[in-house]
Amino acid sequence: MTSSIGQHFIGGARRAAGSVVLHSVDATTGETLHRGYLEATEEEVNAAATAAMAAFPTYRALPVSLRAAFLDAIAAEVDALGDDFVATVCRETALPAGRIHGERARTSAQMRLFATVLRRGDFHGARIDLAQPQRAPLPRADIRQYRLGVGPVAVFGASNFPLAFSTAGGDTAAAFAAGCPVVFKAHPGHMMTAEAVAEAILRAAASTGMPAGVFNMLYGGTVGAWLVKHPAIQAVGFTGSLRGGRALCDLAATRPQPIPVFAEMSSINPVVLLPGALQARGVQVAQELAASVLLGAGQFCTNPGLVIGVRSAAFDSFVQHLCQAMGNAAPQTMLSAGGLTHYGQGLQAMLAHPGVSRLAGGEQVGPRARAQVFKADASLLLQGDALLQEEIFGPATVVVEMADRAELALALRALRGQLTATLIGEPDELAAAADLIAVLQDKVGRLLVNGYPTGVEVCDAMVHGGPYPATSDARATSVGTLAIDRFLRPVCFQNFPDELLPDALKNANPLGIERLVNGERTRAPVA
Amino acid sequence: MTSSIGQHFIGGARRAAGSVVLHSVDATTGETLHRGYLEATEEEVNAAATAAMAAFPTYRALPVSLRAAFLDAIAAEVDALGDDFVATVCRETALPAGRIHGERARTSAQMRLFATVLRRGDFHGARIDLAQPQRAPLPRADIRQYRLGVGPVAVFGASNFPLAFSTAGGDTAAAFAAGCPVVFKAHPGHMMTAEAVAEAILRAAASTGMPAGVFNMLYGGTVGAWLVKHPAIQAVGFTGSLRGGRALCDLAATRPQPIPVFAEMSSINPVVLLPGALQARGVQVAQELAASVLLGAGQFCTNPGLVIGVRSAAFDSFVQHLCQAMGNAAPQTMLSAGGLTHYGQGLQAMLAHPGVSRLAGGEQVGPRARAQVFKADASLLLQGDALLQEEIFGPATVVVEMADRAELALALRALRGQLTATLIGEPDELAAAADLIAVLQDKVGRLLVNGYPTGVEVCDAMVHGGPYPATSDARATSVGTLAIDRFLRPVCFQNFPDELLPDALKNANPLGIERLVNGERTRAPVA
Repeated sequence: MTSSIGQHFIGGARRAAGSVVLHSVDATTGETLHRGYLEATEEEVNAAATAAMAAFPTYRALPVSLRAAFLDAIAAEVDALGDDFVATVCRETALPAGRIHGERARTSAQMRLFATVLRRGDFHGARIDLAQPQRAPLPRADIRQYRLGVGPVAVFGASNFPLAFSTAGGDTAAAFAAGCPVVFKAHPGHMMTAEAVAEAILRAAASTGMPAGVFNMLYGGTVGAWLVKHPAIQAVGFTGSLRGGRALCDLAATRPQPIPVFAEMSSINPVVLLPGALQARGVQVAQELAASVLLGAGQFCTNPGLVIGVRSAAFDSFVQHLCQAMGNAAPQTMLSAGGLTHYGQGLQAMLAHPGVSRLAGGEQVGPRARAQVFKADASLLLQGDALLQEEIFGPATVVVEMADRAELALALRALRGQLTATLIGEPDELAAAADLIAVLQDKVGRLLVNGYPTGVEVCDAMVHGGPYPATSDARATSVGTLAIDRFLRPVCFQNFPDELLPDALKNANPLGIERLVNGERTRAPVA
Repeated sequence: MTSSIGQHFIGGARRAAGSVVLHSVDATTGETLHRGYLEATEEEVNAAATAAMAAFPTYRALPVSLRAAFLDAIAAEVDALGDDFVATVCRETALPAGRIHGERARTSAQMRLFATVLRRGDFHGARIDLAQPQRAPLPRADIRQYRLGVGPVAVFGASNFPLAFSTAGGDTAAAFAAGCPVVFKAHPGHMMTAEAVAEAILRAAASTGMPAGVFNMLYGGTVGAWLVKHPAIQAVGFTGSLRGGRALCDLAATRPQPIPVFAEMSSINPVVLLPGALQARGVQVAQELAASVLLGAGQFCTNPGLVIGVRSAAFDSFVQHLCQAMGNAAPQTMLSAGGLTHYGQGLQAMLAHPGVSRLAGGEQVGPRARAQVFKADASLLLQGDALLQEEIFGPATVVVEMADRAELALALRALRGQLTATLIGEPDELAAAADLIAVLQDKVGRLLVNGYPTGVEVCDAMVHGGPYPATSDARATSVGTLAIDRFLRPVCFQNFPDELLPDALKNANPLGIERLVNGERTRAPVA
């Protein structure tokens, strides 16, 4: 086999000088695919970071309307990636074509949503305090604040969303919107997919006149440390494991200049079942919950991995139906052989614990993941046993039965930080659940009522974040338009001539944006 | 001497069980003051953090109007601290009474400004995306986002602002406003001052019905590490040295749960003198600049420690006048004997460098700090010599003469992160300085034209922050209303019944705040 080699994307050009060849794998058959990629060298990592830094002053100084045009152009290029592309993604990830069509639409819509944010202009955070020359005892100077990009951002692609959390995914979109060039580390699980999307981004950059180096992409499993340590990199976006995310955080914190790492890592997404709901619609809840656990072979950050109820006949019946639905589920091919191995290890750890029993699922057979339901003693939850708090990445969930509502409330207090928590209940019992909601609110980024956490809407109000270890920084979200805040910092101008101010802060308000002027929000120009 | 002992403030009560006694010192005479304070024990640190955590759910759930009333009550109590109090502050810090009167007013005004922010309501960051049940292919759920406090905040008092950056200072005000209880570490330099202000806060807490533990204060030089490592603490505010701030960052990053540290640390605040301004008003600039360097014995984070100009007769004349003004300045008592020692060490390091000469100042004599002007070779700046980039905390500044404007631009590129940078220029040369402004914008939190960086206005638009090492996180400010953002995190609610939503997100908009609803800013209720 003569291997064709895909090169890195550095400063608008393609090159690769490494010697270690990586190959994409057909996730379903295990077949090694034709196209090879060279592990990036340290020099190439440095060149990519340097190219991003070289592009930064030009890119962030572009009119915001041009940045928005760039995002829209990427969206159009992503939408235009055709059936061959979809087939490649499916081969690399074993995800079905329907899912990839949906994810492609989500990815382009996300780019367009950030373009909307740029045109709306609230991301500028424009604030103007006009001079008060007559103020006693001291006059006040004219002070004006806006926000600008922090600098080049390193983004690590996720295994489980080859499009929406990868090359042109949410972190890249947020960084571009903020005015930050990107150095993207392609995930080894879908390198051909990454290449096609990177080419789409470069086409968009060329057609909209973006500087070379606004987007760079590197292949390789070991390039992450070099990238995070490079002095040009000013922030990191990561979606992956707790271990991997924490390692990047530790690395970033020990740089001469520490930088923020926004790592979305590990969540078990507790679902709390109130008794009335199980009485009224236990079978339905069991089926819906099973569907949420099984979706995408359970390979979602928001997969409901913990189901908590209170001892009752209705709960017993619910568990029975859940086990039925899960036990009947067809085995599913996971994203990679490594993922399947990892899933198996997680299951073994559960089975090895004396406080855990398996209710449905049985042994893995062959190359596909079987769905699993475990039951854990309530004491594990109450005592904060680490096993129950670790994410099992795959189609598995753990049921815990509490003695009564008081014990349920205690169990929620013992939870670690989560991306989501869900309450399933009838109106009357929800109305009486303010105490549970208060506890859960301090644990999560997103609280749901009578829904399921899989499915993360890309919109202004979404929070895909949460306290550690769900993420490394609870003050951030990696989905939704607030994600841009991660890559912005405020700067203020004191006593500046109007013509030297950025457009967002000029007297005439040429961008027509809403600004906080002397403590009042207004679109009016200032004198 | 029978020593009276001031105890810690823990959970609304006073206690102290330690054995090491600390005494405040009269900063002018060196006399040990009567009142003693016991170094806090580890148990006391833990108790204070636990008390703050116990107060958190109650405090953050209070109506925002009550939180605002608490801040206003603190302001009134601070204003009521009388002449005896001012005399105590002056004894502990050697700062003049006029300055303390001003700082008291600044401190209470800061509390009131945060109360205004709470009433204005934009800190909630309320965003509502209404349900779209008919959307294809998937319906959109109702999703609503607001921001809430991160949890208990540890605040480290600054040496140089015994009121405005200390017990009831900006970090405390921002944390309280965000709904976060505070554990405050009193600065050993002004422990009696801290006690009086802590009592004022507790009176305000009592009169407005705040939970015990909303404010706690510990004495001791070695308690910081225990405090930052305590699992209840969710964020840290610090103003002080680069070494101290970095140590806290490193500690926080290695916790089982890493937490953010907002440390304001080290800045030399370059002032760039353009030739036309020196031609037109060199003498005036020299006098104004000297006044800025000398203010408060140079003990400001924003003290202009680096003055950069281009070789010319006008620059020579400016330097001569600057040296005259600085040389004629009366020596000033510093905040502490330790501060004076540290100042002396900084000066020795300058003198020991072969590329640095002293233009004005001479040897320190006795217990007061003499003003100093140094001149450094341009090569030191161009090569990023660490000596020129280190803050000398005291009334000293360094002049650097560049060969021409091109070299000036290069020098600015070599600067590290700064709180401020200042351009002094005439209109025509400022209009031609866009390139310099672009470079400086990436280096600082605040850019000034024809002003001086000392004097940090407390307002909506202020940024008192900047890239490392000015601060540990360029995305934050420690002065101005944006400082509240450090202690807030977003949470969203999906498919929630209206009555279970926080007021900020309810359909009827009972708080009357502006919200982002389906991408549009509005105060209208939603259906």
